Formats: sequence, structure tokens, C-alpha cells
Amino acid sequence: MPKTVHLSLTEGHALATACLKANGADEANAKAVADTMIAAEGDGCKSHGLFRLPGYVAALRSGKVDGAARPKVARIAPGVVRVDACGGYAPLALAAGRQPLIDAAREQGIAAMALVRSHHFAALWPEVEGLCEAGLAGLACTAYMPAVAPAGARKAFFGTNPMSFGWPRRDGPPMVFDQASATQAMGEVMIAARDGHELPPGVGLDAEGKPSTDPNEVLKGVLLPFGGYKGSAIAMMVELLAAGLLGEHFSYEAAENDNKDGGPPAGGEFLLALDPSRFGDAGWMDHCEAFFERLLALDGTRLPGARRHENRPRIAADGFDLNAELHEKILGLCGA
Amino acid sequence: MPKTVHLSLTEGHALATACLKANGADEANAKAVADTMIAAEGDGCKSHGLFRLPGYVAALRSGKVDGAARPKVARIAPGVVRVDACGGYAPLALAAGRQPLIDAAREQGIAAMALVRSHHFAALWPEVEGLCEAGLAGLACTAYMPAVAPAGARKAFFGTNPMSFGWPRRDGPPMVFDQASATQAMGEVMIAARDGHELPPGVGLDAEGKPSTDPNEVLKGVLLPFGGYKGSAIAMMVELLAAGLLGEHFSYEAAENDNKDGGPPAGGEFLLALDPSRFGDAGWMDHCEAFFERLLALDGTRLPGARRHENRPRIAADGFDLNAELHEKILGLCGA
Repeated sequence: MPKTVHLSLTEGHALATACLKANGADEANAKAVADTMIAAEGDGCKSHGLFRLPGYVAALRSGKVDGAARPKVARIAPGVVRVDACGGYAPLALAAGRQPLIDAAREQGIAAMALVRSHHFAALWPEVEGLCEAGLAGLACTAYMPAVAPAGARKAFFGTNPMSFGWPRRDGPPMVFDQASATQAMGEVMIAARDGHELPPGVGLDAEGKPSTDPNEVLKGVLLPFGGYKGSAIAMMVELLAAGLLGEHFSYEAAENDNKDGGPPAGGEFLLALDPSRFGDAGWMDHCEAFFERLLALDGTRLPGARRHENRPRIAADGFDLNAELHEKILGLCGA
Repeated sequence: MPKTVHLSLTEGHALATACLKANGADEANAKAVADTMIAAEGDGCKSHGLFRLPGYVAALRSGKVDGAARPKVARIAPGVVRVDACGGYAPLALAAGRQPLIDAAREQGIAAMALVRSHHFAALWPEVEGLCEAGLAGLACTAYMPAVAPAGARKAFFGTNPMSFGWPRRDGPPMVFDQASATQAMGEVMIAARDGHELPPGVGLDAEGKPSTDPNEVLKGVLLPFGGYKGSAIAMMVELLAAGLLGEHFSYEAAENDNKDGGPPAGGEFLLALDPSRFGDAGWMDHCEAFFERLLALDGTRLPGARRHENRPRIAADGFDLNAELHEKILGLCGA
């Protein structure tokens, strides 16, 4: 077991905020980015927790990301809220666009947010969960750096291209899934490499295009889409929604335009909001609760996101373990 | 090789129309259903061609489906077009809602069609392709009869739950994929059993709920979603959009309410339309064409739907082969 340091969420948040501010982020951006990372730690999702902080810092130091950016929000069509992150990190821009998107969806029945000129380095479930908390259903996706070979190919072209979908529940947290179009996310492979774990078969190919279960080899090679050509089609859909639709970088463009500082490249995010109460069935909530009940009555089922939601109160109370090497690294970055 | 009868698309259309009319469909409904089946034959997609006609007829004969239904279209929110098929087949209702959905999407940037009280028995790509031909992107999904075990479960609960997504191209037909949430169709498993082939892992479970690669065992068990828990999440999303959002039947409700006449159960369809020209990038078409070009430049790649589009001009010119037994059966149904 690697050595760890135990932190409360408050301590983790303060550490992240201080580190980002020491590297050029202003208060609002540092807080928004820290909120996002600590929400992931709080859900036990370490690959999107403080593990990302060195990357965030690198992109501030290189000047790729503007740590003091102020997002601009515009309703460019009745159903479209365009949020220009102005070269900053995504969290503050997403926060700025949240209420306008909710308002548009309630008014129109359906609306989308086009997040552009942002740097996204986080899970998508926080923004989807934010919509569900307002009683809406949500879908989000983003293209990233080329990491996944399209069906039939042996070279990276699609990003890990996560898609998240959420549905509001009557009691307790919403149902939210958030999954990469790759069999595993790159963050998971990175953590497997760090911790010396083997990968399950089917996760990726090595540099020669041969299947491998060694995370270090897959990191030099390419990930595979989940479910073969069907997952590959989903990955392509994500490219078209998050880049083609918004006028933002496709994954291959993100790579071509990136300075390779280890932080997130410039890109966009597509965020869809649906108001079930505007689709014609006043009893939708009861109907869907009955569906979830039937699904959960089957032996062996659980809802996506359930583990995160189970982790949440425990980690909020007890705190979390941070890899000691990462903790040292973060402390070093704070003294920049 | 089974015996076949050769027909032109026009002959096939006339045969289908006559057969549906002989069984209680009026002119408009017969023509719309025939259009849909013949479009599938014309793309070489036989499983959605005249192969479906006996099922369509069975549901007319049993009285489950109203062959003279007139769909009602209502704009129930600025971004929501609700189409009530009034107990009829989906094709006429989809045709009635098409232009209102296109108008709404162009006006709002994004809009959805809620198709309800319909009987859907066709592929989804025709309606998605219809949106793409108007310069829009489209996404469609529908829940069907339980056939797929959710991740972790051993019993059928989700339908095959197809999802289709399409994107307009500058020249030629749009990119459209249309894929079930199951790894393989039951028909493919039957063919593997007949030919003595082993299944790839992940296709299905045996009668005891254990993973099996023996097609004979899977035929006694249940299909699995593509890509494990990720495909299962997609199947659940389809249930929530096509049933939960619209106030329509979840797959398990479709089964509980069906008369088992072999025709399609009552249900809904969710159809999303996006107007890329309203999302803020005037150059979106060039940008996306460059993306498709880069993708196709990779060794081993092709676009989803490419085979259908390659078949189209050939079958339009040369006609198609219809299984002779099916042809006999259809002729028998015509004389009802």
C-alpha cells in the first residue's frame, strides 16, 4: 500500500485553494476549481480529486489558462445558453451558466448550454447533478485529447469523451452516471500505473497496436472504446456534440493546439437540460420512481452513482486519504 | 440458400400497401408504414423490411393498432412538439410531427418531439435521417419489450432500446448510426447456434444467470447490454427518455400491457433535433467535414451507416430479393 496522509474535506479544499492562488488563480477561480476537485474526493472519486491539482497548476504556470478569467454568458437562441469561459477553467464558467440554463429549460422545456473556450479537467457529474437538483434531467459530454482508437483503427483519435446523464429522484440524490467512451478513463489507467495494478483485458493497445494489460504500455499506446463499434459510435457522437456543434476543438484539434504542459487543453462542453414537467405527463415523478423501484428489485442491480452517494456522508464526516507523494508534490507547488 | 422472389422497390411498396389496406389500414397509414419498410429494404436492412409486415398485420387484425388513426400534433412548450399517434402506427405520426419539430428546432436552436400512444416496429434511422436532410442533427430512442438484463442482474428488464444519432453532411447522405443497447440481437445468437459458433464473451447469460459463450445456453437465458455496465447505463437512459420523460411505457410496462399478437406494443419515442447554425459557429459544416475526413483517413475506419448508403442506389436500381416463404405468407395475408 502506498503511504497516505489523512485530510478532512475542509483541509483538502483549503490546500487546493491556496495552491491554485499561489500559482496565479484569483479567489473565484481557485474556489470553483477546488470545489470541483473536493466534490470528487468527497465522493471517493480519486481520479478527479486532488490528483488533478498538479495539472491545473501546470497550466496556470505555463500561461495556457487564465486563472483570473471572468466567464461571459449569452442567450444566443431561445434554447441555447452560450458560456464563454474566456480561456479560464470550466468550473467558474459552469457555475455562471447554471441558472440561465435552468431558466431556459423551464421556459422552453428543453435547452442546451454551449460551454466554449474553457479548460475542462473534471468529472461531468457535478454539472449534471446540479441540473437534477433543480428538478431537471441533464446530459453532458466533452471531447478531450486523443486517447481512444475508433472501431477498426489502431491509433488514438477520439478523446476519452465522457458522457454523463442524470435523472432527478423524489428523495435523496439523483441517479447520475458519468462514463468515459473508453473502456476505462485515462485517469484510471494512470492510477493503475502509479499503484502497479494490472488492467483488465480489453482496456487498450500498446504502442504497436497489440492488446496489453500493462497500464504503462497502454499509456504509451491507445485506449479502446467500450463495447466495440457501439461505444465507438458514442465517442463520435460526443465529438460532434461537444466540438462540432459548439465550434470547439475536436480531440485531435485539442492536441494540436495544446502546449503539452500536463494541464487540460482548451475545449468545450455540451450540456443538455430537459424539464420533464413540460413534456406532458404530470405524473412523471411517480412513474419514474416506480421504474427505479422495479429495477432495484432485481437481484444484483444498483443505480449508477450509488457508490459515490454512499461514500459522500462517510467522507464528509471522516475525511479522505491522500497519496503521500502527491501531498508532498502539492505542498511543493504551494511554495511556488 | 433459401428460395427468393425478386421485386423492385415499387413492387414491394405496392405489395405492402395492398396488404396493409386489406387488413384495415387506411390509405395514409398503409402508405406511411410501407414507406418505412421499403426504405429499410432499399438500404439492405432486411430485418426492418417486409420481414415486419406479418407483425404489422397481426396487430391490425387483433385490433391492438388502429389502422385509420389520425395523429394529433401539439406544441406543448416552445421546445416540445407532442405527437399523439392515437393508437396508430408510428410512421404517419412521425411524418405529421416532422416539420413542426424542424420548425421548432430552427426557431429555438434545440427542440424535442414526444411521440406517444404509438406502435413502433421500425428502425430509428429514417426519422433521424429526415432531420439531417433539413440540416439538423438528430437523436432518437425508444424502449421496447424486456430482452436485456441490466448490469449485475440475471433477468430481462430493459428493452433492446435502440438509440440513433445523425449528423448532416455537405454532400451525400448524413452520418447516422442506429444501435441496440444489447451486445447482439437474439437473431444473431440463433445463427451462431445454428452454425455451431461460440459467442464472444459478454453477449449473454444462461438460464441460471451465468455468463456463457454457448449460443444454445444463451438462447435459454438473457442478452446482456453492450460494453457491460456502460451499455446498461445507456439502456437505462433510453428508458428514461422514451418512457419516463414522455409518460409512456417503460419496457416492462410495454410487456405487461401487450396482447402478444406479434405486433409492436404501445409505446413512445423521444426525438431530439439540434440546429448547429444556432449554436454560435457559422463555420460548423466545414469544421465537421474536416473531422469526418480525418477520421476516415485512419486505417480501418468507416462511418456508421455507410453500408446502408452504399446499398441504396444499387437496390433502387436493381430491386431486392424477398424470401419466397415470406412472400407467400404476405400474399396469403393480402387475401384476408
